[in-house]
Amino acid sequence: MDFENIAKTAKTAALGIADISADLKNSALLKIADNLEKDKAKIFEANKKDLTDAESLVISGEISKSTFNRLKLDENKMRDMIQGIRDVAKLEDPVNKKLFVRELDEGLTLYKVSCPIGVLGIIFEARPDVIAQISSLAIKSANAVILKGGKESINTNKTVLGIINETLDSIDGFPKNVLQQVFTRDDVAQMLKCDKYINLIIPRGGNKLVKYIKENTKIPVLGHADGICHIFADETADLEMAIKVIVDAKTQYPSACNSVETLLIHEKFPETEKLLAALQLAEIKLVDNPDTWAFEHGDTTLAFKKVKNLDEAIEHINTYGSGHTDSIITKNIENAEKFMNKVDSAGVYFNASTRFADGFRYGLGAEVGISTNKTHARGPVGLEGLTIYKYKLIGQGHIVKDYVDGTKHFHHKDI
Amino acid sequence: MDFENIAKTAKTAALGIADISADLKNSALLKIADNLEKDKAKIFEANKKDLTDAESLVISGEISKSTFNRLKLDENKMRDMIQGIRDVAKLEDPVNKKLFVRELDEGLTLYKVSCPIGVLGIIFEARPDVIAQISSLAIKSANAVILKGGKESINTNKTVLGIINETLDSIDGFPKNVLQQVFTRDDVAQMLKCDKYINLIIPRGGNKLVKYIKENTKIPVLGHADGICHIFADETADLEMAIKVIVDAKTQYPSACNSVETLLIHEKFPETEKLLAALQLAEIKLVDNPDTWAFEHGDTTLAFKKVKNLDEAIEHINTYGSGHTDSIITKNIENAEKFMNKVDSAGVYFNASTRFADGFRYGLGAEVGISTNKTHARGPVGLEGLTIYKYKLIGQGHIVKDYVDGTKHFHHKDI
Repeated sequence: MDFENIAKTAKTAALGIADISADLKNSALLKIADNLEKDKAKIFEANKKDLTDAESLVISGEISKSTFNRLKLDENKMRDMIQGIRDVAKLEDPVNKKLFVRELDEGLTLYKVSCPIGVLGIIFEARPDVIAQISSLAIKSANAVILKGGKESINTNKTVLGIINETLDSIDGFPKNVLQQVFTRDDVAQMLKCDKYINLIIPRGGNKLVKYIKENTKIPVLGHADGICHIFADETADLEMAIKVIVDAKTQYPSACNSVETLLIHEKFPETEKLLAALQLAEIKLVDNPDTWAFEHGDTTLAFKKVKNLDEAIEHINTYGSGHTDSIITKNIENAEKFMNKVDSAGVYFNASTRFADGFRYGLGAEVGISTNKTHARGPVGLEGLTIYKYKLIGQGHIVKDYVDGTKHFHHKDI
Repeated sequence: MDFENIAKTAKTAALGIADISADLKNSALLKIADNLEKDKAKIFEANKKDLTDAESLVISGEISKSTFNRLKLDENKMRDMIQGIRDVAKLEDPVNKKLFVRELDEGLTLYKVSCPIGVLGIIFEARPDVIAQISSLAIKSANAVILKGGKESINTNKTVLGIINETLDSIDGFPKNVLQQVFTRDDVAQMLKCDKYINLIIPRGGNKLVKYIKENTKIPVLGHADGICHIFADETADLEMAIKVIVDAKTQYPSACNSVETLLIHEKFPETEKLLAALQLAEIKLVDNPDTWAFEHGDTTLAFKKVKNLDEAIEHINTYGSGHTDSIITKNIENAEKFMNKVDSAGVYFNASTRFADGFRYGLGAEVGISTNKTHARGPVGLEGLTIYKYKLIGQGHIVKDYVDGTKHFHHKDI
């Protein structure tokens, strides 16, 4: 099937899944989890084949050792993957929620109701657990998806999606083709052009991938390229707190997008030397180089800069940051408020580690991704980010002419 | 100033206006209304100049008579324009609303707070009242804007925005350059490419303009190109109600985007002939031509088609419609529910005229535009559509390590 046909089929599937019941979706998810568990051996076998193929790529230098490690599905990852699906089944249904009910006039009632977006295009790198996670989020939010995984995990992906789709096919009343998979670079190129059928693209991977996608499509992209997060140690920062928070934000998981990359220090902060010494003791590599201000290190390197005041800190962040997550450490509440209002980022923190930027930590139930967009969804995105809404208007033969004439009047009562 | 600089200036203005108080915004709006009223004569004079210039364009056929009429600012339009600004001042502040407050753990509280999007690019055709309306919505939602109006209304636009900006400049604490205007086609081309600084494009004008913009930018566009709305007269439709609703939806304002373009009639509806005769009597021109199924007539022409059943009606709408607003006339509540769930449009109506699709009629307080997008905002969009949100997290030195270690646990209490 060529890509256009796959996309058309996905649109039909999206219309089909849009209004199936929460019970049907949840029972499908639980059956998928059961069947993946039952067929574990098959999945491990496929993953083993991927790993064997990948070994030579590591040797030839085509993929890195860390990509190879991510590719590996062990018992722990498998258990988490399956548990993740069961957890999604337990979440509140994100569609068909009444966002408001408003009586416009007697007998004329407007319902704003959440509904799925339609067709999602998901592009992800070689992580074999992503396919099950995204599939479960798509089913729960009643969207159709076209999946394109990293080619290194092709056997695992085919096997996992095969088991999921066999399960769905066996469920009475579950629409066909909700989850489809494509495999080539050419498919990706076509996906990015297919704004007729695809409503949202979600890239899951490194910032090169995300940047490439954002630059090559007119379809809305949910995600973030860079995660250049800052911590500002204000004049009145508590030294112990500053050390604790910065060490956490830099070292707890250095390659995460919400790790801190640049430390700004108020020039009147009296304990700068003690702070920097403590950070070095914690094996943080401090660098003082303007070239790194818009750079995501992804390791324990931390840029630092002295600033004259709060305003300079805010301006630095709004100039060099990526709109992800930034934190102020201070005892001055007014400064904290100004910082949180003026820094134009998805997350603005006061005396807390940037590492809290995460859908599960925020209590969103699931994480679809972290967005630095300024429309639709921003910050850690839960299932709500895979929904939009429609307006249902129920009347009794109501016409607009009566309201233009002045025969009738709107009363707009929220009920 | 070249466009890049204008856009940069707009970003600075956006950061400046983001956190000014509701009082300051509202008092600015009221002062603008007063000053426009005071300087009415100057505006009429500028408009007269535009009209004189436009006369020759009408004669040479470069602009239509209806464009000329829209260009004209009379006492009524002026009064409505000024009243519109005062009405916006009265609306609830759309920014700084707490969308949720959640205690993640003791002393660690997450606030999801509405905030402005940033920089809007507004492209509108020759309607001299739009500039004041958009400016007031931008101020209220605390966004900076770059405005590009139709060249035929250039004198009016310059005069109106001049008065508005003089007013804003005179207000202590109001940031500079929140409202800027550009004039050339080249500016538009640059605006559409300027995704570094512009966060949202809003076109106000005919579908050619909107299509052009959607096809030539990666920046999110809020709007709709076509308005191909349908009414489905089901088997059990009440004849009188069907006539009344269809006549309203087609004739009350035929050039509106929410007017009906295609009537679908269930083949078992027993009174098709009476219905069609009544529509003809109401001076609706009925056409039975598949070529017009994806066509917005914009006049009293109405395509009609008999369909076998509800499913065919739904499929027709999802194939040929524009996702704007579609209505079913029926006595069968089950069919109505299926129609509203399965039709993939921003507005899905049951026994009501499609003409109700409007921000004011929905009680949204204002209308920024009508969107057929599947992300961010859909259907009639009020001020909320010009906002996004940020997450503020307030802690006491909280770090993630404690939660990964299991030393501490999230309790996620909404408060």
